[in-house]
Amino acid sequence: MTVPEVSDRLPVALDAVGGDFGAPPLVEGAVQAARAGVKVLLVGDRVRLHAELGRYEDSASLPLEIVDAPDVIGMDEHASDVRGRREASINVANGLVKEGRASAVVSMGHSGASMASSLLTLGRLKGVDRPAILAHLPSKTGFVTLLDVGANADVKPAYLAQWAQLASTYLSVVEDKASPSVGLLSIGEEDHKGNALTLEAHALLRQMPGLNFHGNVEGRDILKGTTDIVVTDGFTGNIVLKLAEGEAKVLFGWVRDALSSSLLSKAGALLVRGALRGVAARLDPSTYGASLLIGVKGLSYIGHGSADARAVKNALLRADRAYQSRLIERLTVAMTGQA
Amino acid sequence: MTVPEVSDRLPVALDAVGGDFGAPPLVEGAVQAARAGVKVLLVGDRVRLHAELGRYEDSASLPLEIVDAPDVIGMDEHASDVRGRREASINVANGLVKEGRASAVVSMGHSGASMASSLLTLGRLKGVDRPAILAHLPSKTGFVTLLDVGANADVKPAYLAQWAQLASTYLSVVEDKASPSVGLLSIGEEDHKGNALTLEAHALLRQMPGLNFHGNVEGRDILKGTTDIVVTDGFTGNIVLKLAEGEAKVLFGWVRDALSSSLLSKAGALLVRGALRGVAARLDPSTYGASLLIGVKGLSYIGHGSADARAVKNALLRADRAYQSRLIERLTVAMTGQA
Repeated sequence: MTVPEVSDRLPVALDAVGGDFGAPPLVEGAVQAARAGVKVLLVGDRVRLHAELGRYEDSASLPLEIVDAPDVIGMDEHASDVRGRREASINVANGLVKEGRASAVVSMGHSGASMASSLLTLGRLKGVDRPAILAHLPSKTGFVTLLDVGANADVKPAYLAQWAQLASTYLSVVEDKASPSVGLLSIGEEDHKGNALTLEAHALLRQMPGLNFHGNVEGRDILKGTTDIVVTDGFTGNIVLKLAEGEAKVLFGWVRDALSSSLLSKAGALLVRGALRGVAARLDPSTYGASLLIGVKGLSYIGHGSADARAVKNALLRADRAYQSRLIERLTVAMTGQA
Repeated sequence: MTVPEVSDRLPVALDAVGGDFGAPPLVEGAVQAARAGVKVLLVGDRVRLHAELGRYEDSASLPLEIVDAPDVIGMDEHASDVRGRREASINVANGLVKEGRASAVVSMGHSGASMASSLLTLGRLKGVDRPAILAHLPSKTGFVTLLDVGANADVKPAYLAQWAQLASTYLSVVEDKASPSVGLLSIGEEDHKGNALTLEAHALLRQMPGLNFHGNVEGRDILKGTTDIVVTDGFTGNIVLKLAEGEAKVLFGWVRDALSSSLLSKAGALLVRGALRGVAARLDPSTYGASLLIGVKGLSYIGHGSADARAVKNALLRADRAYQSRLIERLTVAMTGQA
């Protein structure tokens, strides 16, 4: 492989109009990323985006460009509506990646539509039957990588094996983790415990050369960080992700209530507030910004519709870094043995 | 239905030798339950149990009896080993329920073996294809009832519908909750979101007369208490249960670390300690003691192998209360329309 010097400076395409709050947090995040040196193409209605950009005094001097896309897929439309909507921001953004004019696409809009658009526009990597959504969760050991968190509700054992390989390559490339360990999410540590899907997947994973397969892991292992990667179907993974986020909120609510339950605890709360803020920051989903749709022929990041500017910025930074480390080329090699 | 006055005083059968720590915590829990007025049959090796009981000065005056069972299923044996082991404590305990000599069986031993023993000895209720394990999780609204948490890794849509009915009856009988709401765990609130299993189950649940079906719930809804009951397959449910318990441990570890991270936070920690202890107590799994194997023809409670005396006591109290409220008769009526 030769070093693609010029393309190292390709911009990241941001769907700058999709999401729960429209352009404002998206443009703000892009401005922050641009200030940090990342080039960004803002894709969406040109007039709206110019108006939004105008709010930032330094915007003219930043590596930001607007790419017009008059249409947008609303949060309440169907994912399949993405077909044939050529001028929809998410389709234009994916097109830029396909044409080699952008390094990656980042979307905080309709998740299903973003997924469909990337799949239809970019296609799948060779050796990948179904792309998966890869997310990070804060864990005892830093973070744990979980996939699939929602792209595929019904899966086959071979998908799980492919995802294990993709995630393993991803972590070694992007996070410099040598030989990351992979756990198969199941209902018992023993090899023979699980459902029909995991029992078959377990057998496949055991045979994969070069994969650091730990074996089955249980629900309690996920945040304990027993393995670097946890592989599961998109139904279970989605529930795990949302339960983990939801539980953190409920538990912190209880801690907050407890700290204001008496004069004594209120006084103590003043002293521990700073320390607890560190814990809350650790749990903040905007740290990662967005999840990677892994398995498509291009970098595609999909985040929460409610993403704030910090999440947008972090997603753009991650996308840029993944491109710099040639993630797609490395995944291609891993899945097919060819560059 | 006539009131079974005599049998109201039936004892609960406890497998008093199964579990990670053998007889000591089990006998201690039984002694505590007996002091609270619950009759208990301690099932296991007579000599060991007499020795253990001898440690409690008041044991002779308590409503405790020993039933000899020379054999025990070890924690590392296979669930199927329960077949043909007539003298194994768990089989003897289930036999006491079957013969009408005990009101319920409580086991902290090998979960798979306990489940198999109850299923083989007691049989299924009419209208129930597969019994499920019903557990309670602490939630924002008090607690949420979740099933199946591990009895069935692969399930059919009809099982989920039956479990919804069983759990609904259970909550109205045992917790006096009128028309408890039922959520189907899925990956989107909309009716059309889910996997093949939940889509079919959703349609079945929608048609059930008398069931307060809320619709789909997501991972984040579980601890929020969106519904009183969450129904799911035993694979997903087991992962949910263990993740929820595991996350609570990890988060409290972080809070603990944060509170001892500086002199300031250490000082504050002294003041908030009492308040936080309340939160920890809320999350303590021993509050519920054990989970109910619902759908078998008799009361069968199955708890953690690592259960402490408090968990054992609470499980015995719950079993006794469920018997007093004629749970099995009420479930029979609910599933077949006959007493």
